[in-house]
Amino acid sequence: MTHKIAILGASGYTGAELIRLISTHPGLEIVALGAERKAGQSLAQVFPHLRHLDLPELCKISEIDFSQVDLCFCALPHKTSQEVISALPKDLRIVDLSADFRLRSADDYETWYGNPHSAMDQQAEAVYGLTEFYRDQIRDARLVAGTGCNAATGQYALRPLIAAGVIDLDEIILDLKCAVSGAGRSLKENLLHAELSEGYNAYAIGGTHRHLGEFDQEFSAIAGRPVKVQFTPHLIPANRGILATVYVRGDAARIHDTLAQAYADEPFLQVLPFGTAPSTHDVRGSNFCHLGVTGDRIEGRAIVIAALDNLTKGSSGQALQNANLMLSEPETAGLMMAPLFP
Amino acid sequence: MTHKIAILGASGYTGAELIRLISTHPGLEIVALGAERKAGQSLAQVFPHLRHLDLPELCKISEIDFSQVDLCFCALPHKTSQEVISALPKDLRIVDLSADFRLRSADDYETWYGNPHSAMDQQAEAVYGLTEFYRDQIRDARLVAGTGCNAATGQYALRPLIAAGVIDLDEIILDLKCAVSGAGRSLKENLLHAELSEGYNAYAIGGTHRHLGEFDQEFSAIAGRPVKVQFTPHLIPANRGILATVYVRGDAARIHDTLAQAYADEPFLQVLPFGTAPSTHDVRGSNFCHLGVTGDRIEGRAIVIAALDNLTKGSSGQALQNANLMLSEPETAGLMMAPLFP
Amino acid sequence: MTHKIAILGASGYTGAELIRLISTHPGLEIVALGAERKAGQSLAQVFPHLRHLDLPELCKISEIDFSQVDLCFCALPHKTSQEVISALPKDLRIVDLSADFRLRSADDYETWYGNPHSAMDQQAEAVYGLTEFYRDQIRDARLVAGTGCNAATGQYALRPLIAAGVIDLDEIILDLKCAVSGAGRSLKENLLHAELSEGYNAYAIGGTHRHLGEFDQEFSAIAGRPVKVQFTPHLIPANRGILATVYVRGDAARIHDTLAQAYADEPFLQVLPFGTAPSTHDVRGSNFCHLGVTGDRIEGRAIVIAALDNLTKGSSGQALQNANLMLSEPETAGLMMAPLFP
Amino acid sequence: MTHKIAILGASGYTGAELIRLISTHPGLEIVALGAERKAGQSLAQVFPHLRHLDLPELCKISEIDFSQVDLCFCALPHKTSQEVISALPKDLRIVDLSADFRLRSADDYETWYGNPHSAMDQQAEAVYGLTEFYRDQIRDARLVAGTGCNAATGQYALRPLIAAGVIDLDEIILDLKCAVSGAGRSLKENLLHAELSEGYNAYAIGGTHRHLGEFDQEFSAIAGRPVKVQFTPHLIPANRGILATVYVRGDAARIHDTLAQAYADEPFLQVLPFGTAPSTHDVRGSNFCHLGVTGDRIEGRAIVIAALDNLTKGSSGQALQNANLMLSEPETAGLMMAPLFP
Repeated sequence: MTHKIAILGASGYTGAELIRLISTHPGLEIVALGAERKAGQSLAQVFPHLRHLDLPELCKISEIDFSQVDLCFCALPHKTSQEVISALPKDLRIVDLSADFRLRSADDYETWYGNPHSAMDQQAEAVYGLTEFYRDQIRDARLVAGTGCNAATGQYALRPLIAAGVIDLDEIILDLKCAVSGAGRSLKENLLHAELSEGYNAYAIGGTHRHLGEFDQEFSAIAGRPVKVQFTPHLIPANRGILATVYVRGDAARIHDTLAQAYADEPFLQVLPFGTAPSTHDVRGSNFCHLGVTGDRIEGRAIVIAALDNLTKGSSGQALQNANLMLSEPETAGLMMAPLFP
Repeated sequence: MTHKIAILGASGYTGAELIRLISTHPGLEIVALGAERKAGQSLAQVFPHLRHLDLPELCKISEIDFSQVDLCFCALPHKTSQEVISALPKDLRIVDLSADFRLRSADDYETWYGNPHSAMDQQAEAVYGLTEFYRDQIRDARLVAGTGCNAATGQYALRPLIAAGVIDLDEIILDLKCAVSGAGRSLKENLLHAELSEGYNAYAIGGTHRHLGEFDQEFSAIAGRPVKVQFTPHLIPANRGILATVYVRGDAARIHDTLAQAYADEPFLQVLPFGTAPSTHDVRGSNFCHLGVTGDRIEGRAIVIAALDNLTKGSSGQALQNANLMLSEPETAGLMMAPLFP
Repeated sequence: MTHKIAILGASGYTGAELIRLISTHPGLEIVALGAERKAGQSLAQVFPHLRHLDLPELCKISEIDFSQVDLCFCALPHKTSQEVISALPKDLRIVDLSADFRLRSADDYETWYGNPHSAMDQQAEAVYGLTEFYRDQIRDARLVAGTGCNAATGQYALRPLIAAGVIDLDEIILDLKCAVSGAGRSLKENLLHAELSEGYNAYAIGGTHRHLGEFDQEFSAIAGRPVKVQFTPHLIPANRGILATVYVRGDAARIHDTLAQAYADEPFLQVLPFGTAPSTHDVRGSNFCHLGVTGDRIEGRAIVIAALDNLTKGSSGQALQNANLMLSEPETAGLMMAPLFP
Repeated sequence: MTHKIAILGASGYTGAELIRLISTHPGLEIVALGAERKAGQSLAQVFPHLRHLDLPELCKISEIDFSQVDLCFCALPHKTSQEVISALPKDLRIVDLSADFRLRSADDYETWYGNPHSAMDQQAEAVYGLTEFYRDQIRDARLVAGTGCNAATGQYALRPLIAAGVIDLDEIILDLKCAVSGAGRSLKENLLHAELSEGYNAYAIGGTHRHLGEFDQEFSAIAGRPVKVQFTPHLIPANRGILATVYVRGDAARIHDTLAQAYADEPFLQVLPFGTAPSTHDVRGSNFCHLGVTGDRIEGRAIVIAALDNLTKGSSGQALQNANLMLSEPETAGLMMAPLFP
């Protein structure tokens, strides 16, 4: 049996990535592509790289017959997402890629996103979408809230270490380098090729990046007490990839063992041999996350590095992995393609 | 039944690309990875992006038991390739990606490659690997000679036009732009990031590029008389992609019709609507070739543009497509992944 | 004595480039920076890379006291430029970088730019700004019309050849590759890093690019009869640079001699040894143009290649070179910096 | 009077950068270009971007008449540099760009570079070349040891803070991102465009990068007690630039004040307004270093970021600044060019 899929927000990068991934998935069929501003256009017009696919043209969300849809991916901007989802059938199964249902507290949402949350009733149903740590809840969820791409990367590096108590919770520094597609298709001067390529810089410095809301919520829940990390993202002249360099206190060998054990059976989380540095080159276009641990010359300090593709494991790949669970498809279906190198 | 595959030259870019493609092919199993200089290393050491695959470690060619192999890909440099293939079992089915068996004439080979050919007996058996035009011979071939990546791109733009007689055969100019992975993993100053990125230039100017040997052989055969094109390749600061801008004399609408009809049933050759310019962005990492035709303001002139990924449709994807034919697998198996964008 | 300079359109790329060049010019002083939308901001806010310069903040054009200005650079978009220049003092000396005063015929202007010209009285005074060919008129001009960046590159390759009658005027094909800064700071999806980097494509195919208006005007004037070239521009993933590959009929050695003689005394036009291919790498950030000539294997055909930096020799460097002539400064003042490599 | 200059190691990137900078310096004249392996070639052959300069061809060091040389830049690899310098006239004034004379202790040198030092007599004369902190000694020095490019960047961020006692000396983490030209012209697979572009990774993790020797020496000397920083460099797909993100404990406002005061009169060190993040885009090709300070949401923590161009302020620009001091030229001569953007 084939599951029927709708994608809302099909004209953005995460929408395109979902289509790419689903195009080789044997059990899913895309029946609707919603994109308000580009409604009426063919997929080939919006994304010429997908022109070989025989898919419906883009339409307004109001034109979609959701009674025919088994699962809906929602790849819309935050705030829009909660408005749209509120208006969808209440029994429709949804994987949301926006920030709208990640934070369980309405106050936290307002603090980080600047607007009050208008759909807290739906928030109550939402399951946080970090697959490896919420697998069972995701299977039965009606609404899964995809994680932030930076938030996913940092959590893969840190969750097992916080859970196992092998690092100092008050001394975590997360220096993150992310590629430009994470900013989406927004038309901003600093995202132009002429201004972005050949240079790099930190942004949202001082603990102001919104993904800190997820780190605070999740790490504190694991630790059973407030945990605050220091987090500085940097924009790198590349299109795909996130590299998180995490500075922690603890025994490096024990940290490596903890990660290696935690992820031993995970198909997508690959812990490299001790002392090896992962590279975003090695995960591009794939759903894999590479993790490395090294001890520093300063005793008692270690460096944990995680690399993933922000559009795949960081958003659309994660979303498909979750949808596979929800639809009782094999968890890795459509997701085992190797990274693209060079 | 699964076909057992060996890859010789597994540590180069076309080798890695073969492994990437075969990794999701349901009917093929890699049983040997030959790489003389890196023998004894694991695939994860040589290509960390392929570390998730459970494959044998790299070995010397002499260590491979070819009696267990159904088909062998040979991704070695030219000259080495003919030496190695001469020493392989005479009934082993081979898809060669080098230049060694592309030219039917020993003289032509020596003219373009500078050394005498040492395996002309095998050359006699070789079928030229441009799938769409040699499909039937490839099916039954023992040895298939993969085309040059530039040569493939130019031929997709021109073969049907020459066959149909819709262009002037003496006025063909092929201005080609190719990405750097076409040069392979060679350690040369001009291929360093610091020297290649942010700039571009022509090379092999004046009709000295070796792929002209293939153009001359193929176009002349189709036309039934000598055809010589003018060909200037350029090196572009990108990793994958070839864009051939072909200047021809003829009626643009008729040229477009001719291509559209010729490729109507081809799964990988996509003729865009008249007046549309293909981009290498839209084929990256895929086995598709996009073709566009536009008329010029100067009457009687047209521009034909072809775009493909040199590592996929231009070499390893083509090779796998040919292997599928030889092994009676579905021709598109392992090759329908969508391009990677952005 | 120091000449006082105003720059209108100071917040765009050509404005920034003018400031960069003038910052080390011993004879010029910037007294006003006009930028309507960013008026009131400091230069450091708009262009942090120029923060070390002690310059006035950006202002509205209406706030500038032009009685204190010896020469005004106008780096505004076409159409805006003619409106603004019409309103400036009639004795103000101006170097315009827009397209508005390049074409002598009002009809040609409307044909290529789509709107009627509203300042043809000023057009009558304008001198075409290709320095090496209009030097004497530029010296005395009140209004100099900077050339298109592609138009400059093509003309450096072709003017002496047309003048000397050494090439066939009906068989000129200009395949041009240009970097992205030529598109200016416009916010368009295809100029985003995520969509531009790693790929390339032709645009304005079929003879529709506006710079053809300049080619037609200039080449026909030199030849004394209509000359139409075939011209296809391509967008390359780099920030600065234009490479024009020009396919001509004629004797390659004679073509090389003609260019070498024509440019023997030019400080910025460098003719490379016969058979050498110029690269945009070698002119980046400089006012130099490199030219190369090679004969093709097909007798009677030659390839002429010209490379320059579109923001320097192609626009702002050219503009400063012209201003130097107008102000009786040494022609090379502020322009002899070496290219930036790597 | 013009000072006569020799450059040894003229065919590498720092050599080329020295020539670029000196080419517009009014008081210096290059009289010899040493490059053992490329001796006999013209500068245009080795660096086509410098072909407009009228300079002597490359020669062997043994062919240089040092009696005619006022100052010699030595841009050779470490180890080679100490051997060559030992053999030069003992009264020749030298600015060395290698690592050979940076560390005052022979043991430290051997620890970090793996070979014993063979010219410790010369080491005794050497002055560490971080201009702003060793200005007076450099003026009179015979031999100046240029700093490591990473080491310079980190020191600009930290020296005044350590000297003023405004940060915790035991809690300094330096996460550094550097562009590829810092690796020089070495032919390594990971420096190829195909393997470097579009991805990034940490290297020399765990406190193993050689520039730590300089940090240890200098920071400990300032503090009057051992200071060890944690230092992780990352390779970024760009050609020029270093961005150091430094995590410190202390009051952010006081840290900002301390840097602003320390560098108030420095022509090249620009402290940005509080809370502003510097970018490598804004210093490319220039001798400027931009510095920014921000407080973190976690009280008592601050982030200091420094950005410079590794080939200019990080090596060749620094070297010329030092040479200016040694030759009583204006310190900024040849160094005030604005950054190249875009």
